Amino acid sequence: MPAELLTPADHAVVARAVDAARRLTIPGIQEVGAAVRTGDGQIFAAIHFESATGFATVCGEVAALSLMIAAGRRDVELVAAVWLDQDGVVYVLPPCGRCRELIADCNPAARVIVSRDDDHWQPQASTALVTLPIADLLPRKSHRLRG
Amino acid sequence: MPAELLTPADHAVVARAVDAARRLTIPGIQEVGAAVRTGDGQIFAAIHFESATGFATVCGEVAALSLMIAAGRRDVELVAAVWLDQDGVVYVLPPCGRCRELIADCNPAARVIVSRDDDHWQPQASTALVTLPIADLLPRKSHRLRG
Amino acid sequence: MPAELLTPADHAVVARAVDAARRLTIPGIQEVGAAVRTGDGQIFAAIHFESATGFATVCGEVAALSLMIAAGRRDVELVAAVWLDQDGVVYVLPPCGRCRELIADCNPAARVIVSRDDDHWQPQASTALVTLPIADLLPRKSHRLRG
Amino acid sequence: MPAELLTPADHAVVARAVDAARRLTIPGIQEVGAAVRTGDGQIFAAIHFESATGFATVCGEVAALSLMIAAGRRDVELVAAVWLDQDGVVYVLPPCGRCRELIADCNPAARVIVSRDDDHWQPQASTALVTLPIADLLPRKSHRLRG
Repeated sequence: MPAELLTPADHAVVARAVDAARRLTIPGIQEVGAAVRTGDGQIFAAIHFESATGFATVCGEVAALSLMIAAGRRDVELVAAVWLDQDGVVYVLPPCGRCRELIADCNPAARVIVSRDDDHWQPQASTALVTLPIADLLPRKSHRLRG
Repeated sequence: MPAELLTPADHAVVARAVDAARRLTIPGIQEVGAAVRTGDGQIFAAIHFESATGFATVCGEVAALSLMIAAGRRDVELVAAVWLDQDGVVYVLPPCGRCRELIADCNPAARVIVSRDDDHWQPQASTALVTLPIADLLPRKSHRLRG
Repeated sequence: MPAELLTPADHAVVARAVDAARRLTIPGIQEVGAAVRTGDGQIFAAIHFESATGFATVCGEVAALSLMIAAGRRDVELVAAVWLDQDGVVYVLPPCGRCRELIADCNPAARVIVSRDDDHWQPQASTALVTLPIADLLPRKSHRLRG
Repeated sequence: MPAELLTPADHAVVARAVDAARRLTIPGIQEVGAAVRTGDGQIFAAIHFESATGFATVCGEVAALSLMIAAGRRDVELVAAVWLDQDGVVYVLPPCGRCRELIADCNPAARVIVSRDDDHWQPQASTALVTLPIADLLPRKSHRLRG
């Protein structure tokens, strides 16, 4: 089984995503915080933003990867995304299909933080977290990036 | 006619987009540099990145807006995006339809730097630049963002 | 001024979009009907569908273009999209930035049906319709399709 | 193991996707044929189309789902997508992350035809096909559609 428990350093990635959500949330417009860690231990945190035309919405993971790439790196090794409800309960969210593509494009060996239990919308789900390889979340990726 | 000539401060936005493209280009993967300036004069510069599945590709403007929003701002007032050919010739590119939506979502009064002449792929086009209101590039926007 | 009044044949395109919306609407999931007419007078009508992850949502125009292309044609000459409120009032909606790209990719000379007045969300707006060239709705298109 | 061998009826879905690709391919613009079968045995076949701005590209699966939904159905039960090389060799392609979202949005119990072997770009891969549940291709889907 490829799921692994989080190290303290991994929990820091979640903490940065939560911090981004707390600082930057605008209800209905900016809600999902995300953070990515590169191979040298840097963490890039950002927040999602909605478009009035839904298709153009930018996920938290896309935003965090944008910061990473603008800083000259592509070696994402760990990803976390979170949403907080009105009571401040943290939900750790798996990436959507597009973000899975982009994470795997940057680094096919990246890992993603998810709840141990499948149902990430349970209020207790974020109290037990694991990491999964991106390849487990996007098996049989159709196309690989060529440099 | 709403086109306006660039101020020296506006040219600095182009320069930051060019600088991002020069520093960060990876042929076929990262090529279009972009920069956005907010109302307080801050400039956020970034680069586009391709996905192996084209639909997931992140434009330079999306990346630059991601940096801006992660920094707690939405008041984009000026946008520039550039691509450099093998000889280093700079082409100032208008935003695609998705980026027009996102720019207008952030600030319906934002302006975009484009070549004065319509054909931005002419090698000389970037030597004469103007700014246009985003509303001229996306007239009759279908939906408006509600907070 | 490039806006043109609708011919009876053009009104039939709107009617097909309205018919698609009436037949196929599922509130919150399928709502925007669209229709496209090709050079030989065929009309292809379809409906938009939401994704649970907003970015994957398929606009009505994308769906109608998909039918047209599956039928072996790319020569879209006229496009209409409509949304009906709970009272059955018809709103003729301009295409979003992505759909403008796709329409222009198929045929840079295509026209789009919009309300004569800018504010298409006014309940009376759809009683006075005009057609506009897609190039007016997406001026300075950044990239052209090459076969 | 959830992979299942194809029935003759399942092979007919592949055949329809191949037929769409053979009839409709325009190199560089329309290349990936796709077909979906609904619960009542109807098959809807279509082809992907590129946009000049990559993000707007419409996958074959999106196009085929558009036909299905325009026909008043959402109960996709089987999906296939194919690409043919210059020699006519058929490659059965897994859906991208966006298409996985849309397939699962329509029917979380849908199945997808893929090559038995993981590397679908091997010229022999399409000679041994299986079906997989969409949930295996998009585990931990982040959001579910609500009607």
